[in-house]
Amino acid sequence: MSRLPQVEDGVRLGCPIADVGKIVCVGLNYRDHALEAGMAIPGEPVLFMKAITALSGPNDDVQIPPGASKTDWEVELGIVIGTRARHVGKDDALGHVAGFVLANDVSERTYQTERGGQWDKGKSYDTFAPIGPWLVTPDELGDPHALGLWLDVNGERMQDGNTKNFIFDVPTMLSYISDFMTLEPGDLVLTGTPAGVGLGQKPQPRFLRAGDEIRLGIEGLGEQRLKCVQN
Amino acid sequence: MSRLPQVEDGVRLGCPIADVGKIVCVGLNYRDHALEAGMAIPGEPVLFMKAITALSGPNDDVQIPPGASKTDWEVELGIVIGTRARHVGKDDALGHVAGFVLANDVSERTYQTERGGQWDKGKSYDTFAPIGPWLVTPDELGDPHALGLWLDVNGERMQDGNTKNFIFDVPTMLSYISDFMTLEPGDLVLTGTPAGVGLGQKPQPRFLRAGDEIRLGIEGLGEQRLKCVQN
Repeated sequence: MSRLPQVEDGVRLGCPIADVGKIVCVGLNYRDHALEAGMAIPGEPVLFMKAITALSGPNDDVQIPPGASKTDWEVELGIVIGTRARHVGKDDALGHVAGFVLANDVSERTYQTERGGQWDKGKSYDTFAPIGPWLVTPDELGDPHALGLWLDVNGERMQDGNTKNFIFDVPTMLSYISDFMTLEPGDLVLTGTPAGVGLGQKPQPRFLRAGDEIRLGIEGLGEQRLKCVQN
Repeated sequence: MSRLPQVEDGVRLGCPIADVGKIVCVGLNYRDHALEAGMAIPGEPVLFMKAITALSGPNDDVQIPPGASKTDWEVELGIVIGTRARHVGKDDALGHVAGFVLANDVSERTYQTERGGQWDKGKSYDTFAPIGPWLVTPDELGDPHALGLWLDVNGERMQDGNTKNFIFDVPTMLSYISDFMTLEPGDLVLTGTPAGVGLGQKPQPRFLRAGDEIRLGIEGLGEQRLKCVQN
């Protein structure tokens, strides 16, 4: 990966996708995460959306909303769409991919699950979608189904998974989504998170507080380093 | 309304908002619709999103997805955001409004409620968001809480409501949403639909079929005339 750009001290990196039209998320796509969340293993992908105003850079602060008490982390592989995809078959789906990114699907669990049941409300606060540092093209990345991904909070390893454990693989997700809505160039698909989110910690859940530092990464896609601040 | 543009024969009108960043929808915002849908009256707004790729013009065809069996209509007042709104109070909310539009929140009920429980999947097919014909500024429209709105299918009146029956009024909706995500200029907020959707028809539900013609309107905001086609 020596050809990837190096970040100079003091330079802010933004989201590496210039024009994201929408963010479509696949929920519960790792068996161990569905179990820790107390949810059924889905028989088909669960879809929800994040507002594009939630996008931020890979080293930006994560803002905890006023009064929020269950702000949580989710390391995820992100797929960036390269060409319009509408009713595409699994065999053609990878041809519509521009590249892959590291993403953190930050979530306020009270808003997500205790305020009406539709998840978007808990997924869309400003800074709840740190993306990057880089977009890596499929030929550079290799198999997207064999990538280690991890997340630390204050230096403690919380998530340690591998995309080989996807319930639905990349072609299946893209083909499936494209039956419900058209994916356009720049659209971002988040592919779900493995076990180890705050909600799933034992003996009790653990959520983000101002001052916490989150680090996360995916093999070949770089790392994020995010500080939590109270908004 | 004589100053509003007239449509020439053969001219297609598109969505009257040039650059929609996101579509945020308030569900179950009329008591009679919540009852007909078999849902509880919400204690706070239920929020979900429609993909912006669903946007279409006020006289475009509505595409019924392949294999869909419960495609439904919903006449709704749409609010177009004029200035950024983040954590705004009810007293300030109307100052962030650029104008109002007629909208049809077309929905495939099987996708919405029988395919995992997150509604976005059933709200986002191409052509599921016919908007317009016009954007009307607040000073031209007058009180947004006293507007008759109606919808006919094949000449039969299905919905006949009034925005005075909102559970949550326009300032409450905007203030509420702005606590969960930032609203940007061009963003569109759909405010829920009154009773009379296909799902609520007695003695049995009635859904859209290829060849059906939908007409709908809101006082001061013009009319839509949409033909249903099988995709």
